[in-house]
Amino acid sequence: MDKSDLIRIDKNHLWHPYTQASEYREIDPLVVVRAHGHCLYDADGKAYYDTISSWWCNLLGHNVDRINGAIGRQLDSLDHTLFAGITHQPAVELVSQLLEVVPEQLSRAFFSDNGSTAVEVAIKMSLQYWMMKGLEGRKRFVFLEYGYHGDTIGAMSVSGVSQFNSAFRGLFFDSISIPSPALDLEASISALRDVARRRDICAVIIEPSLQGAGGMLFYRPEFMDELESLRQRYGFHVIVDEIAVGFGRLGRWFAHTESSLRPDFMCMSKSITNGVLPLAITLTTEEVFQEFVGPYSERTFFHGHTFTANPIACSAANALVSILKETDYIEGVKGIEETISELSNARLQDYGFLSNIRNRGVIWRAELEGATREDMFALYKIGLEHGILLRPLGNVIYMFLPINITGEELEDIFDKLNGALRVFSNI
Amino acid sequence: MDKSDLIRIDKNHLWHPYTQASEYREIDPLVVVRAHGHCLYDADGKAYYDTISSWWCNLLGHNVDRINGAIGRQLDSLDHTLFAGITHQPAVELVSQLLEVVPEQLSRAFFSDNGSTAVEVAIKMSLQYWMMKGLEGRKRFVFLEYGYHGDTIGAMSVSGVSQFNSAFRGLFFDSISIPSPALDLEASISALRDVARRRDICAVIIEPSLQGAGGMLFYRPEFMDELESLRQRYGFHVIVDEIAVGFGRLGRWFAHTESSLRPDFMCMSKSITNGVLPLAITLTTEEVFQEFVGPYSERTFFHGHTFTANPIACSAANALVSILKETDYIEGVKGIEETISELSNARLQDYGFLSNIRNRGVIWRAELEGATREDMFALYKIGLEHGILLRPLGNVIYMFLPINITGEELEDIFDKLNGALRVFSNI
Repeated sequence: MDKSDLIRIDKNHLWHPYTQASEYREIDPLVVVRAHGHCLYDADGKAYYDTISSWWCNLLGHNVDRINGAIGRQLDSLDHTLFAGITHQPAVELVSQLLEVVPEQLSRAFFSDNGSTAVEVAIKMSLQYWMMKGLEGRKRFVFLEYGYHGDTIGAMSVSGVSQFNSAFRGLFFDSISIPSPALDLEASISALRDVARRRDICAVIIEPSLQGAGGMLFYRPEFMDELESLRQRYGFHVIVDEIAVGFGRLGRWFAHTESSLRPDFMCMSKSITNGVLPLAITLTTEEVFQEFVGPYSERTFFHGHTFTANPIACSAANALVSILKETDYIEGVKGIEETISELSNARLQDYGFLSNIRNRGVIWRAELEGATREDMFALYKIGLEHGILLRPLGNVIYMFLPINITGEELEDIFDKLNGALRVFSNI
Repeated sequence: MDKSDLIRIDKNHLWHPYTQASEYREIDPLVVVRAHGHCLYDADGKAYYDTISSWWCNLLGHNVDRINGAIGRQLDSLDHTLFAGITHQPAVELVSQLLEVVPEQLSRAFFSDNGSTAVEVAIKMSLQYWMMKGLEGRKRFVFLEYGYHGDTIGAMSVSGVSQFNSAFRGLFFDSISIPSPALDLEASISALRDVARRRDICAVIIEPSLQGAGGMLFYRPEFMDELESLRQRYGFHVIVDEIAVGFGRLGRWFAHTESSLRPDFMCMSKSITNGVLPLAITLTTEEVFQEFVGPYSERTFFHGHTFTANPIACSAANALVSILKETDYIEGVKGIEETISELSNARLQDYGFLSNIRNRGVIWRAELEGATREDMFALYKIGLEHGILLRPLGNVIYMFLPINITGEELEDIFDKLNGALRVFSNI
């Protein structure tokens, strides 16, 4: 198939995620044929920095030899097996490796395939736990405005209602939202205190430190500290969704550890395989697990996906975690953050249309006040011409970079960003 | 890690899908170290026929050279890229290959990661379609008793309430169930006719020809024929869940084509990668797709998973579909069905405790009336000793075999089944 065949079939028969086909009437989707390091390459060999880590999952660049090697070796022995009544080395080794780096109370691992299912697993475990405890009144979930936890009905039911999910509101279960700590920390903490007293709270779910899809909104650890003291006092569960920020993006293995928070559930996915194969884990405490040990009919957690703990994906994850342990990439994020701050300060002062420019870890973001969808899509297309992906979130542009990006690459990326913004400011 | 380490860590830190840990106090999970052909192998080299195709996904046996080769080649070029605004050869080629074998009206493909998400995608597309058409009153889904479509909240909301999902009922959206056509065809058709007249029906979702997790219940095509005539008359959508039976298990590429049914949505997963990597596709019609083309805010389908159309999984799927096209495996299922019928008739007559012994395609099932969970688990353990997986569904034992299983292997499997049942009948 040549490029024109690919594009023709794509336009006639494929339906892309989070994509409006009418925007691709005049232009074509980018045909990516190869990826290496921190770039995607099109058929003509042109490079595009994968500035959003292929939706926040590629952690150490593309086509990493050691990860590919691990996949190849796994294929030679065990491609897949169901994971009920059966176990295997890649899964056990992965959990064993993770136990060395996750908070100590999180010692039980349940596998699934993606972030949405990792969240659904946590929701279902928490609800069933309280039912089995005889506290079936604890059935309401609390979430943050601008929070995002996935696209399945359960995950959407605990996400901030927005353009993304409003069409499906009629299918949601009732949950309680509180203001975002990123927009108004005091109001958020105050609402949290009010809601925490209620006896019907099952769990509070948060994205720690950064609300991603809500617009890359950073918030301070005080909110999580307060959540911890309320958790201890009132006994509800806390679910942290580390799907986007876990594995070092904010300079720690897991972002919530910048606070005192001791969550009952932690959801992981995306970077866990270096973003090359679907895999997710929901971690929980031994106490939660033990509540599910007993008679089969009454206490079993009836949940499972076909590809649960797929050995190939586990092998990629094992290689990723090993690399992180043996290198100082996570420690290096502090330096990347400083470089990004410097470059952002030095090179983006000319653009009056940019506001709320913020960065932390490997993440940088800015708002274009009053920008329309057409403006944002125009900027996205200009970004592509300059060799960077500026996929917008509403009127926010952002970069969500790999944690081993170099200073030279950062300079190059900010040059390209600067160039794209200059062209954009002149149209 | 040696076997005892693996088991110790597993028991202390892993949580298996659809598994009650108390049943593994005295015994250990099976440690699978290798898979080849139609068998899984433990650390001692003992073989176990993968008689349920690793949860109905392994189609042509394990570690198929051509599939592994395709994965390896893909790893060398493009491991992963986000799929918004971007396309790639493995995805386009897969859709292109599928278009040759799926019903012609199903010409648009949306990718996700597993069966549950494929179903959630269909549910959300159908609901949003009617909203955009100005028929937001069409918001109820109709499902079959004993139906099963996955474990996320949306998928469970359109599944028959059972032991599997009753704990989570409080989180479901309201749907309408009708009797199973496998248990009472007339009652099912009559209820379907009543419900079809309602103006609030969004879509009817079915597993075609076989209700899998509900107990491997076969049903006749008349139900689907009736569903088609009602669909044409009243205009609601039909979603067929071919996740388990698609790709030849019942002797056709897709099971519902034994009837006149022309579904608006078809969900596929499991066998699509030969069961080696997570991948799913929701197919729909051009008419549904075109309703989503228009202004960004009003008409976009805001859904997407990070690993959407993962190139590695697409490559495995391309190899699988190519093999199916070039061989007569699907046509061969008729012969396998006949052999299973003969073996089942010849060898299982001695067991009075077996009832409702049925088979079709590569699927065989029987009930143990009055059997307790303990009985079923005892039989499962005896099966393992005999080298076959007899993982029960309630009081049903079943086999869900690969479509290239040989006559010799079938004889061997039925010998082992016979042996296991004999031991079981003596305890």
